Amino acid sequence: MDYETPLFFHVMKYADAADRDVIDMVSGNPDWEPPEALRDGLREYADLEPDRFQYAPSEGLRELREEIAARRGVDAEQVVVTNGAGEANYLAMARALERDSGSEILLTDPVYPYYPGKTTMLGGTQRFVPVDDDGYLDSAAVRAAASDETAAIVVNTPNNPTGAVYPAETMRELVTVAEEYDAILISDEVYDHYDLSGEFASALETDSANRIVTNAFSKSMAITGVRVGYAIFPPELVADAKSRHMLVNVATTRPGQYAVLQALRETGPDYYEQNRQRLRERVAMFTDALEAAGAEYTTPSGSFYVMARFEGYPGTLENVERLIDEAGVAGMPGEAFGDARSEWLRFALVTPRVEEAAERLAAYFD
Amino acid sequence: MDYETPLFFHVMKYADAADRDVIDMVSGNPDWEPPEALRDGLREYADLEPDRFQYAPSEGLRELREEIAARRGVDAEQVVVTNGAGEANYLAMARALERDSGSEILLTDPVYPYYPGKTTMLGGTQRFVPVDDDGYLDSAAVRAAASDETAAIVVNTPNNPTGAVYPAETMRELVTVAEEYDAILISDEVYDHYDLSGEFASALETDSANRIVTNAFSKSMAITGVRVGYAIFPPELVADAKSRHMLVNVATTRPGQYAVLQALRETGPDYYEQNRQRLRERVAMFTDALEAAGAEYTTPSGSFYVMARFEGYPGTLENVERLIDEAGVAGMPGEAFGDARSEWLRFALVTPRVEEAAERLAAYFD
Repeated sequence: MDYETPLFFHVMKYADAADRDVIDMVSGNPDWEPPEALRDGLREYADLEPDRFQYAPSEGLRELREEIAARRGVDAEQVVVTNGAGEANYLAMARALERDSGSEILLTDPVYPYYPGKTTMLGGTQRFVPVDDDGYLDSAAVRAAASDETAAIVVNTPNNPTGAVYPAETMRELVTVAEEYDAILISDEVYDHYDLSGEFASALETDSANRIVTNAFSKSMAITGVRVGYAIFPPELVADAKSRHMLVNVATTRPGQYAVLQALRETGPDYYEQNRQRLRERVAMFTDALEAAGAEYTTPSGSFYVMARFEGYPGTLENVERLIDEAGVAGMPGEAFGDARSEWLRFALVTPRVEEAAERLAAYFD
Repeated sequence: MDYETPLFFHVMKYADAADRDVIDMVSGNPDWEPPEALRDGLREYADLEPDRFQYAPSEGLRELREEIAARRGVDAEQVVVTNGAGEANYLAMARALERDSGSEILLTDPVYPYYPGKTTMLGGTQRFVPVDDDGYLDSAAVRAAASDETAAIVVNTPNNPTGAVYPAETMRELVTVAEEYDAILISDEVYDHYDLSGEFASALETDSANRIVTNAFSKSMAITGVRVGYAIFPPELVADAKSRHMLVNVATTRPGQYAVLQALRETGPDYYEQNRQRLRERVAMFTDALEAAGAEYTTPSGSFYVMARFEGYPGTLENVERLIDEAGVAGMPGEAFGDARSEWLRFALVTPRVEEAAERLAAYFD
């Protein structure tokens, strides 16, 4: 069975094994500090009584679910704490496909490759709606693609890989389309703390029994390895999602949940603003250098990614490996994100060496 | 969709909410200390560089996979580090069902309730093979139940809930039956460190392309909440299992993997022997008190559980709740483990108060 396994780990391994210095811009692994309170949380956890090393409640620590619920304006009963946004999206897509309301998942092109992979694994079929050149998704195009076969519409805002932040009106319209076709809008908002535009709008702003919001602390707290995320379900859908979570994972890692709770409570807005500011500076540095090199590129309104296009150098896996070996810069092939960006490469701005990377690229393509 | 969600968390919640002192013998949560090196590992992790807070390789930290592989006598490529035995069993059963070699899963009666739950969730059908009164599984009965429709045979040794430890010959025969019907023997060996009989035999002892072994550090290190387990696949089956793991969870929690690796390296046999000795003493204490009370009961050869039967008090959820309220002892209903033990109750010996619990039971049923 071919699940269309995402290529991220493959490219990272290839870059690691390269016989030269490589600037790693493959995956969305922040290179900045997690909140100090997160480190404190882990340290404290190490000294807790044995009973605190045992299963957390399957749906997550009560205090963590309450903290999330209060921040997101939902009921704690709607929150399931998951093994990162990865499991949250898996639970959401499984739920949408099991409602006997269609087996097709509408995805965008370009797309975050885990979504089509999960779709196939869960027995669904894929249908892609192209976004425009700036990465924006036209809700009318989604409506035109929707049908009685539509089980879910999966979107990601701020978007990986385009950097688009969908306007509030788009989010409202997407919920409406989902309602019209008795489908589920699944809005993956894992980059919400990296909105550089001030325009970010959560799907939670539109109350509906037809939308699920997924998120994680992986990006916002720079802890992709800890694996703590969550999904917010409508009350009608939450019980079955909790069952699947229990049957797949039993529960989410407790030291991680404990440390995230502590970090949520004790980390002020400065931490997040500093991370956004760093990202803004990197975007400016990287795109300036690409501009000087005469390349085509995107300027993200949010998320970690800049896409770039170099004349005569399509975004294939082969070309990405060549770039690692010959230029010392590791990105992701655009073709991994769908046909629409197959001429492009994606670079994650999660290294202090973005300027050097851009210079290497400029020199290589000169 | 009814996934037959296991009742454990429901009963634990009921016991927590009770308006009296309740001795918790519901779930297999050890009440003893994790290894000191595990605590040290978490503490050290808290001070690592930011890059160590990012995704571990999807299949697990290389050093951890190598340590597991060396101990189990397999190749590290065959090892996938999972979110506990729960995910390991899920991956194994999914793999068995996706081989186009049947859609029926053979389970034992009584059975650990997560197995039938996972079977249904994954679209398989269940067929139960009764064990004998002592909890032993006759491989001839498994062969008689097997057919071309058999995708997998799922067993658990040392067994939850019966306490049986299957002899080496049974394990060999089960592998042979799986080979005969092109099925997969899935052997869940999560209680391997709590073999009280000295007779435990891993399915790994019989090399075969038709068996998957699952395990976790949850019980052996008393860390059910940390969520680190593993599955060992035949080389032919491992790639697709890694894909599913990536698509569901991306990766397993890294602080947990780091701490488990440290604990594996630094914890001597004394730690495990002390835990077995404590369990032996509790078994003796609990069964002596049950004997004195004139109850029928099992004496486990391994795992954490004693089953008991009280005249006129079948093992229903209702009776378990009544026992919580009226006797202050929380167990699990035998009916949750299948028809064969519906007259019984299961008690987990994971509290220092086992003698008191047995006295409460004796007084209640007097």
